[in-house]
Amino acid sequence: MEDSLNRVLANDVVAPINVPPFNRAAVDGYAVRAKDTVGSSELHPVRLRVIGKSSVGKRCQIRLNAHQAVEISTGAPLPRGADAVVPIERCRREDEYVNILDPVPAWKNVSREGEDIRKGEMVLRAGKRIGPADIGILAACGYSRVGVSRRPTIFVIPTGDELVEPGKCLQEAKIYDSNSYSISAAILETGGIPVLSERVGDEREIIRKTIRQGLKYDMILVLGGSSVGSQDLVPSVIADEGKLLFHGVAIRPGSPTSFGLVRDKPVFSLPGFPAGCLIAFELLVRPALHFMLGLRESRIRIRARLSRRIASTLGRVDVVRVKLEERDGTWVAHPLRVAGSSVLSSISRAHGFILIPEEVERLEKGTEVEVVLYR
Amino acid sequence: MEDSLNRVLANDVVAPINVPPFNRAAVDGYAVRAKDTVGSSELHPVRLRVIGKSSVGKRCQIRLNAHQAVEISTGAPLPRGADAVVPIERCRREDEYVNILDPVPAWKNVSREGEDIRKGEMVLRAGKRIGPADIGILAACGYSRVGVSRRPTIFVIPTGDELVEPGKCLQEAKIYDSNSYSISAAILETGGIPVLSERVGDEREIIRKTIRQGLKYDMILVLGGSSVGSQDLVPSVIADEGKLLFHGVAIRPGSPTSFGLVRDKPVFSLPGFPAGCLIAFELLVRPALHFMLGLRESRIRIRARLSRRIASTLGRVDVVRVKLEERDGTWVAHPLRVAGSSVLSSISRAHGFILIPEEVERLEKGTEVEVVLYR
Repeated sequence: MEDSLNRVLANDVVAPINVPPFNRAAVDGYAVRAKDTVGSSELHPVRLRVIGKSSVGKRCQIRLNAHQAVEISTGAPLPRGADAVVPIERCRREDEYVNILDPVPAWKNVSREGEDIRKGEMVLRAGKRIGPADIGILAACGYSRVGVSRRPTIFVIPTGDELVEPGKCLQEAKIYDSNSYSISAAILETGGIPVLSERVGDEREIIRKTIRQGLKYDMILVLGGSSVGSQDLVPSVIADEGKLLFHGVAIRPGSPTSFGLVRDKPVFSLPGFPAGCLIAFELLVRPALHFMLGLRESRIRIRARLSRRIASTLGRVDVVRVKLEERDGTWVAHPLRVAGSSVLSSISRAHGFILIPEEVERLEKGTEVEVVLYR
Repeated sequence: MEDSLNRVLANDVVAPINVPPFNRAAVDGYAVRAKDTVGSSELHPVRLRVIGKSSVGKRCQIRLNAHQAVEISTGAPLPRGADAVVPIERCRREDEYVNILDPVPAWKNVSREGEDIRKGEMVLRAGKRIGPADIGILAACGYSRVGVSRRPTIFVIPTGDELVEPGKCLQEAKIYDSNSYSISAAILETGGIPVLSERVGDEREIIRKTIRQGLKYDMILVLGGSSVGSQDLVPSVIADEGKLLFHGVAIRPGSPTSFGLVRDKPVFSLPGFPAGCLIAFELLVRPALHFMLGLRESRIRIRARLSRRIASTLGRVDVVRVKLEERDGTWVAHPLRVAGSSVLSSISRAHGFILIPEEVERLEKGTEVEVVLYR
């Protein structure tokens, strides 16, 4: 059951029973008829005859009549005839009688049949990411298994002659491959299963062969090799092998992103610069994965005020990572970096990001912006 | 490396190298000296002599002098002497010369050595929950492993004569055990490892024996049996076996929560009502787990306005689950349920919760409240 945590619910869930399935005492005390307690007080308690006891987990056969009470434990079934429970602290037992010190209204201290979930009610909707309370609801309904959507498998192909595996020695003009790991983690976090290919050089035939290997998975992400220029290999391989649907996106960072279909499998070519790679994943790949998962939720957005003016590029959506700080009960967003596709650390420090539309050239200090939260 | 996703960083991380480790071209084009491009335009381009090529992943031996240019690919090392890159789109090649159509300022289109991470800089702090960008940073620094805090093991003991395993037949006066599953999921979500014991009845000796079995784990959670009354077994067993530190908390739901130490191991007794159980976990157990994990982060809080008046109990902190709705750019919080410890579905539907302090009797419609977000 806990295995379903963070998975996406495949079908609507209807409650097959009432939860709780019977009227239960919500406190330890005495089950009574509420109307019998009218007018009671410390000085003039109402005196009821105790005719038995209702215990947790045991069927209660007693039928309660006027001026009677039944001793009851939290969670035990309310006897027929009773409609309230007087807490033990407001009762004084005297042999086979109990003195009630306070009046109780009907259904007081009773957890009523179906009060949490009503039989036939739709309790969870398909497309929800399953959290601890959802697992509790499923269990309370008696379900021991639940249908979840399949986790899509994503083949990740790191490309670039400059890439070296972390932990190995770094020679001149080389850099450590970080995208393979950050993107695999982002896939895991979103709910997919990353399958990492070997690193491939900037060679047409190797990239072609590796993309073909990836066609047995649900999606292919090629990291690096997407920029428009002499080493612009991946988009042209996609075009050769299938259909290139777009090449370049008006976002910054992340603009050198391409997308196409090869034998009906979606293939993304993401930029090699680390922050551009993660931002393109966030804005383009993540929604695709959500669609494949059937997930109907998105990140939370909050309003905040900019702590300083930021410039933006006309004709491009600028993705600005921000750190949030609470000041006098409102959120202030500190822009971490406006341009620079290489600045990975800005994402690590950021609580979220804002999108500056194409037609906006700058945002003044104090402008209210919408921050998309990373968690 | 991806295994560290969502784990808690055990130590501060200092960058052992600059990232990037050398000046890299950020676009495909020509590496130049910025001052050589001053005054260039489409009509009067500056003409530079192309003396070579810098490729990705290959050491560049060329030294660039005045009025020279080097063909360069995105990610390739900038030749010595160069301080900017002119994008290919703003260049016109003519045999061994290139015409530069625009002037570029120094360091334009260059991803500079150390611009992302500076050698010796503290890039990540102990106590951070590791996300995809953090994994990217660690890899970019060349780390193939990272120290994370140990996941605490939590022994979960469901108690109650009324409990039936989901999937089994439900007899009268019984209910399905849901707390075992919701609490195990909440432990997993927080970063602990739940170890589920067998369900035990409301019997002193069995509870005592099972708590003793749990002492080999880092923490024990006993579910149910914590209310003040005839079946109030768990707190008294804790007092017998060790030291009961508190019994009952002024929160609603979740008040019948106890805590003690048995042979130095923390033992919580959580209420049996499902919502009370999860709320008590959220407010009391989760912070304890965060402490054990060394986690220095907490849930995000946002401001919202109440959609309706809510009543609260004096002398108790009311935990009110709310659903958020965006209206004209501000958040409106719809209270899902004020009282009722059994109403589990309110947590599933909720985006977060608000805490109403002990001295507050009601909150009027429109009051600004602070919502603690579940995700």
